[in-house]
Amino acid sequence: MSHASPQAAVDLGDLLAPGREVEAHLQALLERRPLPQNLRQAALYALLGPGKRMRPVLLIRCCEAMGGRLEQALPAAAAIEMIHCFSLVHDDLPAMDDDDLRRGRPTLHRHTNEAMAILTGDLLNTFAFEVLAESYGTTAPDRVGPLVRELSVATCEMIAGQVMDTLPDFGPETPPLERLQRIHRSKTGALIRAACRMGVICAGGLEDEARRAQLEGLSDYGQTIGLMFQVVDDLLDVTSTADAMGKAVGKDQDRGKLTYPGLLGVERSRRQVAELRGRAHESLGRFGTEADPLRRLADYLAVRER
Amino acid sequence: MSHASPQAAVDLGDLLAPGREVEAHLQALLERRPLPQNLRQAALYALLGPGKRMRPVLLIRCCEAMGGRLEQALPAAAAIEMIHCFSLVHDDLPAMDDDDLRRGRPTLHRHTNEAMAILTGDLLNTFAFEVLAESYGTTAPDRVGPLVRELSVATCEMIAGQVMDTLPDFGPETPPLERLQRIHRSKTGALIRAACRMGVICAGGLEDEARRAQLEGLSDYGQTIGLMFQVVDDLLDVTSTADAMGKAVGKDQDRGKLTYPGLLGVERSRRQVAELRGRAHESLGRFGTEADPLRRLADYLAVRER
Repeated sequence: MSHASPQAAVDLGDLLAPGREVEAHLQALLERRPLPQNLRQAALYALLGPGKRMRPVLLIRCCEAMGGRLEQALPAAAAIEMIHCFSLVHDDLPAMDDDDLRRGRPTLHRHTNEAMAILTGDLLNTFAFEVLAESYGTTAPDRVGPLVRELSVATCEMIAGQVMDTLPDFGPETPPLERLQRIHRSKTGALIRAACRMGVICAGGLEDEARRAQLEGLSDYGQTIGLMFQVVDDLLDVTSTADAMGKAVGKDQDRGKLTYPGLLGVERSRRQVAELRGRAHESLGRFGTEADPLRRLADYLAVRER
Repeated sequence: MSHASPQAAVDLGDLLAPGREVEAHLQALLERRPLPQNLRQAALYALLGPGKRMRPVLLIRCCEAMGGRLEQALPAAAAIEMIHCFSLVHDDLPAMDDDDLRRGRPTLHRHTNEAMAILTGDLLNTFAFEVLAESYGTTAPDRVGPLVRELSVATCEMIAGQVMDTLPDFGPETPPLERLQRIHRSKTGALIRAACRMGVICAGGLEDEARRAQLEGLSDYGQTIGLMFQVVDDLLDVTSTADAMGKAVGKDQDRGKLTYPGLLGVERSRRQVAELRGRAHESLGRFGTEADPLRRLADYLAVRER
């Protein structure tokens, strides 16, 4: 980078490194499953574009913060990335956001065609649950139910949030800021929170009361950084360039969508980010150094530039 | 009916009656779940149009044949109907089959709009797994994993079958009849077979070897009537009227799609139905009168006129 940026203040190190393991696991899962070749290729295209892998990394880091191992978390991490990618593919469709560019590449319906993009999204949605059932069914059968519950509830929430965002149905009595918060709590917050909770479930031992309290701490953490993620996203849509983001920017405003900077202004939105960053740290109060990666993740997500 | 029909030869009686319970349960599940009103209405429209409820009824009748109760099967029956309805909504979309009519009513994207139809299909796909996890999570937690596995594997198969059917990717070495069989084994067969297997899982007791053998019998039954269902569907597309079917007919032929009557002719297709009907009865050899509803279902599905 040619200029000093606040992002430089966060030493990422190998913080996001588990994302590479997730990508390898996604690829292996897709290659192992019998599928028509064109569908498999489309699914791999949707899954393996450049990306931060934020949800799977969060899931893995939460599992590790609870003393679990990467391997225990990998199938759940792959499943949550499938859900995220399914939502991106469908959100980009002509009947939805009608986007041509995603992560710096043509969107899937541009790369293939609309029917294939619809069906690939459908496949990834369902495949996530197949992966949970198949992967944990033999190694940790008692975790399948809780993992499926977390992921399905959050995914339904995410879809409901997309409806609230694009096909709003609020009564006139709902103030704009409350609308915006409800949209984002559902649309992005629920899945990020679920990532954290699923990581804890993968680590196991939830019959222990102290660990259940830690689950609640990590739920709060997830909820907080989920909201922070969205405020930052809205800010980036105003202040960043398409080049840096790898997707179209300024579209929220053009479309008259509710956004944090639009409602609160840029400065108040930035203060909101700082406050949420502090709250994310507080929610990790029950943890020692084992949660340091989560602290650094919160810092990184507060200052990210794409 | 003004003329004697072969269908009259099968006394349906209350064979399909559990379908009404399934509809009531679907309605209750949708009303209980917090959702934006417009999304809830769209989901109810997609779920509660007139329909045979074949998959949930099969699931329930298989559960009962194994000594289980309707109540044990009801959430799984609702879940499989959600998957079926999700697939109908997405298959009808302009980018897919572009159908205006379904079950005698406007298709969902005609009734609402395309974005809502995409999102409603997505919701029903995911909600099916939420229902399995939530409903059995407390009453029969050890059944969540096996149920999720059956339903997710079959749904992925169904989606793969839709890709094979509409975006074919077969090598030139695959003969047409084999293509057709592979398409239908995936597109309709897998979910019908899963309905039967899920019914057995709902009844429980699969640590018993004799019951596991019964599971295999009901799997074969499901596979057989799944294939039979499709041959009959293809025949009806040739011989029935849009009025009787509640959807457009003759479209397969117009589109040059592979069909059984197209490949084998009407008469050989009819003999195929008769043969499959016999095979369905054979697969129930391990069962006494408790499987009579399944025998009558096979008879009904062989001679149905819509």
